[in-house]
Amino acid sequence: DPGFDYNEHPHRRYNPLTQRWLLCSPHRTKRPWQGGKETVNEDRPYDPRNNLLPGAVRTSGEVNLEYESTFAFTNDFSALLPDTPHGQVGSVENNNLFIAEAVRGECRVLCFHPRHDLTIAEMTQEEIQAIVTLWTIHYEDLGSKPSINYVQIFENKGAAMGCSNPHPHGQIWSGSFIPENSRVSLESQANYKKAKGILLLQDYVEQEVEKKIRVIAQNEYFVAVIPFWAAWPYEVMIMPAPGRHYKSLSDLDDAAKSGLADAMGRVTRRYDNLFECSFPYSMGIHQAPTDGKDYSFAQMHLLYYPCLLRSATVKKFMVGFEMLGEPQRDLTAEQAADKLNVVSDTEHYRKRLS
Amino acid sequence: DPGFDYNEHPHRRYNPLTQRWLLCSPHRTKRPWQGGKETVNEDRPYDPRNNLLPGAVRTSGEVNLEYESTFAFTNDFSALLPDTPHGQVGSVENNNLFIAEAVRGECRVLCFHPRHDLTIAEMTQEEIQAIVTLWTIHYEDLGSKPSINYVQIFENKGAAMGCSNPHPHGQIWSGSFIPENSRVSLESQANYKKAKGILLLQDYVEQEVEKKIRVIAQNEYFVAVIPFWAAWPYEVMIMPAPGRHYKSLSDLDDAAKSGLADAMGRVTRRYDNLFECSFPYSMGIHQAPTDGKDYSFAQMHLLYYPCLLRSATVKKFMVGFEMLGEPQRDLTAEQAADKLNVVSDTEHYRKRLS
Ligand SMILES: O=P(O)(O)O[C@H]1O[C@H](CO)[C@@H](O)[C@H](O)[C@H]1O
Ligand SMILES: O=P(O)(O)O[C@H]1O[C@H](CO)[C@@H](O)[C@H](O)[C@H]1O
Repeated sequence: DPGFDYNEHPHRRYNPLTQRWLLCSPHRTKRPWQGGKETVNEDRPYDPRNNLLPGAVRTSGEVNLEYESTFAFTNDFSALLPDTPHGQVGSVENNNLFIAEAVRGECRVLCFHPRHDLTIAEMTQEEIQAIVTLWTIHYEDLGSKPSINYVQIFENKGAAMGCSNPHPHGQIWSGSFIPENSRVSLESQANYKKAKGILLLQDYVEQEVEKKIRVIAQNEYFVAVIPFWAAWPYEVMIMPAPGRHYKSLSDLDDAAKSGLADAMGRVTRRYDNLFECSFPYSMGIHQAPTDGKDYSFAQMHLLYYPCLLRSATVKKFMVGFEMLGEPQRDLTAEQAADKLNVVSDTEHYRKRLS
Repeated sequence: DPGFDYNEHPHRRYNPLTQRWLLCSPHRTKRPWQGGKETVNEDRPYDPRNNLLPGAVRTSGEVNLEYESTFAFTNDFSALLPDTPHGQVGSVENNNLFIAEAVRGECRVLCFHPRHDLTIAEMTQEEIQAIVTLWTIHYEDLGSKPSINYVQIFENKGAAMGCSNPHPHGQIWSGSFIPENSRVSLESQANYKKAKGILLLQDYVEQEVEKKIRVIAQNEYFVAVIPFWAAWPYEVMIMPAPGRHYKSLSDLDDAAKSGLADAMGRVTRRYDNLFECSFPYSMGIHQAPTDGKDYSFAQMHLLYYPCLLRSATVKKFMVGFEMLGEPQRDLTAEQAADKLNVVSDTEHYRKRLS
């Protein structure tokens, strides 16, 4: 039978959240690589200049609390500021070519743990849950400010992902605007609800749990999959389990928070175990904006975008065709899930050194 | 006057081609950098294993022509293949969640010069024009095939941009589909023509040439600017000069080809001179699809996406907020143009060694 088989033949898949196609070339996984190699640093020596340590003096002169769990402060080099004057140049409606608008916001840095050398993959579930709680507090605190309409929580992990300090930490950039990727994703979810009467991500999670092939972690509250439309080789989405509806972190009780921590721990342990290295990624949360509107069509979800492709040193470059045309991947989402499912999600290859 | 000033205050700008906003934080240019450093290799020693050399035997066993100017061959690890069976799973119209479609295409590698150690920035105008001619031949050859509807020409330059061989070369990925970024750009240009009666990029080039502040190279045929909506720190667009209408490479006569070569030479020399290094970038051409439809609303243009931010070793990472939210930049397009305009566009800092 010479029919089309997406495990074998070049094809495009469609991401219903971004409303964009991407190219998939399953036959191409075996091409040789002569290009650059990443260094994934395994040693995380204590550095007295690390300004995220408890009690450290930062560039701004401020001193961190002697924190024992988590700690948050305003970013000393915030991309957004709370007091920008309002104003705008041109408009989309008028088809202008020079369009700019002032924005306001607040950026925070979130320290995940007092120890400089731990990552989420090596933390206990309680330690990870403390991060979820920290996120929730700041989502609500920032979200309650009248000028803040979206709270973007994220973590850049590893030098390969532009992270300048290996101390476990994340960031929040919150602002008066809904960033483009969330705006489009919310639009997609609203349209789906209107067309089908059910939530896009509830429909999706049910089908993935039934098919099983792309699921890499699952508990009563959350499910982690390599989405059918993943662009990055080991892209992962963590979304509410079948029957659950969480618009944002604010909808999680302690049991659900612990479920999310469990899923995050399983995903990051599989990541680290895959190539036996500290797996670099950017991750973040898409959830309900804080502009007071109705977002009952939305499901919160975590997105992980890791850059490694074939080993601890060979990464996927989203360049060339990807920048000019559209994202492209070699191994399929199903193959990626198989590889992650072979390694442990409970034990970390580097037992935690206490 | 406490009004909004986009040279100073955090703001968003709108890209009318991608129909997307991006965040701009002009106040943030001075933050310290403690993160990873790129290695930009200046020595390009002769490597006998370089499979792009004239006469070299490739992995496939095929032998390159003893070429003296340019040379093209079918990619030995093509992401697209000419004989994929047709087929499709799900559809966008039906709001399916698992949507895939088979695609066909052809990928080629284009060697720009027999010398392994030359880059476009160090080539003569005649040598660059030979590349433009090569592109035109392959745009027309591939475009004439019934199954090929778009010909994506691009160049990944430098290890930082995922380029695995420093020999000067580019690629073509051509396929049965119009890649997403071109599809949206063409839609924007069509809408603009309908709404305003003029071409988007003709209107734009006229205003940029008048304003001057973002122009970095200009001749009778082409104009290079840092677009008002640039996302990458030194992103550049080369587009037809005022009064010119070129839908694709096929519309260029020899004089216009030489004009394009001149603009490409000036842009890449400024790039290399900026940090006195071989400036890494991805570049490519957006032009008319080859599906036989009417694209008279479109202007061909070249897009350069270079990754460096502050020096030969510090690059901009499009991670975290950028992946989850939307692109962000520190220095403004105007500041970037100023910096590029300070360095020479005629002399290369490393005089060509013959
Ligand atoms: O084809 P190459 O040079 O081996 O590969 C490079 O360019 C391709 C097309 O832009 C990308 O898909 C790859 O990720 C990149 O490493
Ligand atoms: O804020 P940091 O960690 O210094 O910077 C990093 O994260 C930011 C937010 O994703 C990005 O804009 C920067 O390019 C990246 O280097």
